[in-house]
Amino acid sequence: MACIVQKFGGTSVADTARIRNVALKVKAEYDAGNKVAVVVSAMAGVTNRLVEYCKEICEDYAPEEYDVVVSTGEQVTIGLLAMALQAAGVPARSWTGWQIPLVTDGAFSKARIQRVEVEALKAAMDKGIVPVVAGFQGVTENGRVTTLGRGGSDTSAVALAAALKADRCDIYTDVDGVYTTDPRIVKAARKLDKVTYEEMLEMASLGAKVLQTRSVELAMKYQVNLRVVSSFEDEPVGTTICDEENIVEKEIISGITYSRDEAKITLAGVHDKPGVSAAIFNAMAEANISVDMIVQSDSADGQSTDMTFTLPESELSRALSILEKSKSEIGFHSLLSDSDVVKISVVGVGMRTHVGVARKMFKALSEKGINVQAISTSEIKISVLIASEYAELAVRALHAAFNLDKKEG
Amino acid sequence: MACIVQKFGGTSVADTARIRNVALKVKAEYDAGNKVAVVVSAMAGVTNRLVEYCKEICEDYAPEEYDVVVSTGEQVTIGLLAMALQAAGVPARSWTGWQIPLVTDGAFSKARIQRVEVEALKAAMDKGIVPVVAGFQGVTENGRVTTLGRGGSDTSAVALAAALKADRCDIYTDVDGVYTTDPRIVKAARKLDKVTYEEMLEMASLGAKVLQTRSVELAMKYQVNLRVVSSFEDEPVGTTICDEENIVEKEIISGITYSRDEAKITLAGVHDKPGVSAAIFNAMAEANISVDMIVQSDSADGQSTDMTFTLPESELSRALSILEKSKSEIGFHSLLSDSDVVKISVVGVGMRTHVGVARKMFKALSEKGINVQAISTSEIKISVLIASEYAELAVRALHAAFNLDKKEG
Repeated sequence: MACIVQKFGGTSVADTARIRNVALKVKAEYDAGNKVAVVVSAMAGVTNRLVEYCKEICEDYAPEEYDVVVSTGEQVTIGLLAMALQAAGVPARSWTGWQIPLVTDGAFSKARIQRVEVEALKAAMDKGIVPVVAGFQGVTENGRVTTLGRGGSDTSAVALAAALKADRCDIYTDVDGVYTTDPRIVKAARKLDKVTYEEMLEMASLGAKVLQTRSVELAMKYQVNLRVVSSFEDEPVGTTICDEENIVEKEIISGITYSRDEAKITLAGVHDKPGVSAAIFNAMAEANISVDMIVQSDSADGQSTDMTFTLPESELSRALSILEKSKSEIGFHSLLSDSDVVKISVVGVGMRTHVGVARKMFKALSEKGINVQAISTSEIKISVLIASEYAELAVRALHAAFNLDKKEG
Repeated sequence: MACIVQKFGGTSVADTARIRNVALKVKAEYDAGNKVAVVVSAMAGVTNRLVEYCKEICEDYAPEEYDVVVSTGEQVTIGLLAMALQAAGVPARSWTGWQIPLVTDGAFSKARIQRVEVEALKAAMDKGIVPVVAGFQGVTENGRVTTLGRGGSDTSAVALAAALKADRCDIYTDVDGVYTTDPRIVKAARKLDKVTYEEMLEMASLGAKVLQTRSVELAMKYQVNLRVVSSFEDEPVGTTICDEENIVEKEIISGITYSRDEAKITLAGVHDKPGVSAAIFNAMAEANISVDMIVQSDSADGQSTDMTFTLPESELSRALSILEKSKSEIGFHSLLSDSDVVKISVVGVGMRTHVGVARKMFKALSEKGINVQAISTSEIKISVLIASEYAELAVRALHAAFNLDKKEG
């Protein structure tokens, strides 16, 4: 008898017919003799409508009240799925975030989980009852509703699986697994059977939208056996996210990701003296803007230089106005920006032991005439910033160069 | 400085524009120096859609899960109204039923309030914060979500006003007060400036849909100064519901109500011996079916008689099947039913001191050729059961007979 957490996303519970279908998937695991807990998202479209209401009231709403509003979507789904399970002959009961409780910090609208009290859920499961838990939501120590940020239901599921010491956490979604790259761009993209936590973490934070980054972090920390599977297949295989030692034949590179939410700022004519970088990046840090790649050009005259960095496109206008205000303090000649850029990344734990990945990457890009504007690296990824118009071309070239294309029949 | 509870119904908060409008009504009381707490319903249509989802999943759903689903409507409104108040410059915070907590019994989907813990709300109001409270919902002692039945937000508001010892409880709705009868039937219906708790209680339970019956019971019990006013008027006067001694010029009759949710069952050929009525009405009571009027015809032969009673139309088919099953036990010849009946009632505390109300009522009906099928009375009301087709005619005739018609300008 295994303990399994199943998580179903918004498209999987988009209407009452699909919710009844989800009940059958839960019933299958239950009837096989497993202890099952279920985590659900809001019905597709519901959260967007609730967010829209908030914006209609006032652009600058309090995140405390936003969380009260948007957390209702998941509450609707848990009640409906509990009913559907009961109708299918499976004893079930719903749990909201505050009922569990799933306790978070007070960072409303992007709260972090502090603990999940699973005693009541365990007791229910021991009695053969399937707990249906609202994803995405939690509660602060002093009883206010919080939400975990978009995609937060993945994190709820992994946190629950960790707390229950579950044997498996299955994330049911509208794709059938994790791919070597976006199949809409590269037809020959392959589904990965297995991928390591570290790779998935990089891929999630670099733009692959299959899992929320935080959920992968948690899964890695608590060694949760995580699987991404399709809700719409009868016997899904999916992709397993696990430790490197559980992957026998590891390829050097696992995937190519891209992110369009990027922008570039260049401060031209910055004084080439100590403390200038600190002034720039302190200003960004104070405004809670995360800076990614940084490039400082050579100082031709030994006195002034250009400083370029990248940041999320959504933060661009705020960053520019902050820099403009600090112009005299920082000391620069002019401010340039460009949001017509994308970040393309090559990810794979094999990089640790194989040299030549960077060389192969730059060669593939240069052969297509693609100019690299900035670079950043980690132990298992190399990212480059390029002009937006080359995005698909670059992804395809890299996918082919690293032999990720599906083998013919 | 007065303490005021304002309650806004579904049509008053039907969209975000109306919610912003409600915020202005709250702000007006707040700016006048009052301590204000607000209770809100779900946005118009939302609860119906949620109920529809439940029915789509399964007709025979668990009321525990129904309450989890339908209580979300009010939670959306409290968050949005709190935001709108903040945007209008009024400090505000939302409270769900479990956050207060508003504790109820465990009768899911029709729970009764046991207590409202108002310390946190009072502390907020003392600091100048307006609590925005979700109507219709509560929580059991062991932390499960409950709802109070349709119209339950009125009851939430009155219970809150009682617990806060508020000076006034204003129920904002889409009509401008309580009328002598339904203005859609009688054009000359008059708005009542004042009506007693007892009369309002009879009128609410006899079919006038302005207030939930339980809210009036609570208001009477705790002497809450209750007012029904329009959300859509700038300076609403409305109708005040209060004690009889606060009404100087009291009319004998305050209103004429009608209810279409009525059905009649006749058991023909019942043995005219002790214990038969008990057998019939025990069976109904055990099935939780409330019987209203009862008529036993004269026993012509001294051995068998006909027994007629009325019940809510929605319970008719269930009642018939129960009686059919108990046929041998009860002992009757045949079972007849008629759902083509309405109950018309004349309500007024003046009946206690004025004789001749019944005589005048039957005279008015007989002059129009309307046959009375059954009668029930209380100290302050007389109800008759008549054929549905005479409903409007009877209401108009009684409204005129008791001089309730609006005087010509």
